Amino acid sequence: MKWQILTIGKPALGYARAGVEEYRKRLGRFVSLDLRCDWKDAGSQKNSEILLSASEGSLRIALDERGESWTTAQFASRVERWRLDGLKRIAILIGGADGHTAALRDGADHVVALSAFTLQHELALVVLLEQIYRVQTLLNGEPYHR
Amino acid sequence: MKWQILTIGKPALGYARAGVEEYRKRLGRFVSLDLRCDWKDAGSQKNSEILLSASEGSLRIALDERGESWTTAQFASRVERWRLDGLKRIAILIGGADGHTAALRDGADHVVALSAFTLQHELALVVLLEQIYRVQTLLNGEPYHR
Repeated sequence: MKWQILTIGKPALGYARAGVEEYRKRLGRFVSLDLRCDWKDAGSQKNSEILLSASEGSLRIALDERGESWTTAQFASRVERWRLDGLKRIAILIGGADGHTAALRDGADHVVALSAFTLQHELALVVLLEQIYRVQTLLNGEPYHR
Repeated sequence: MKWQILTIGKPALGYARAGVEEYRKRLGRFVSLDLRCDWKDAGSQKNSEILLSASEGSLRIALDERGESWTTAQFASRVERWRLDGLKRIAILIGGADGHTAALRDGADHVVALSAFTLQHELALVVLLEQIYRVQTLLNGEPYHR
């Protein structure tokens, strides 16, 4: 099962870039991770078309403040079920500054909020990657390395 | 109005240290911020005693996964009300690896969750600081600088 993380806009803040690299490296031990952040922010309409097209055929999780809140345990048990169901790819879609269109939310299998707070875009990417790392260590029965 | 951020354990991960510095510097323009993270993790009982004692006289917000979810707008309007009420200090209490005791949660004015997900301790500190920075730019009517 592959993870696609599709995000509009490259991390520009130094600490966020470092955080993304930290968890990308850690996750490399567990999973196949395809992190794409090479699209420029072209407005929510165009961004959403790009994200839907790039995630064609994957199970789609859109990150959106208005989405459901999942606990780590709920996320982990879903990931485990998807794996057992033989799912090939999970795509996580992170929009640009203005978020996703309604069409993208409708086209997603799940719409999930990382927090009720509005998080800075690049920080959201770090939070997401840390969470996937946490879920993978749980599912592999390994201790979480701080 | 002063902000006290009282947290058990120093950030050890490079990216988290850099994120804390980033927002500490940005917040320095707006507010008086006293960030203390020089206590070693001594178990939740001892940690909670230290945090309660260091926040004596402040309005206490304990961060805890089981807490309420606030939106950024809700957080901002509370901060504004506290300022108008002439509140002197807000203390935000972040526990160690095992979280807070029930006594600390009972002694807090608010118990708030940054996310339904379990976040790495140091990453939670970055998320918190970014959120305070966001609230302060909102309240000052300034654009949010990414």
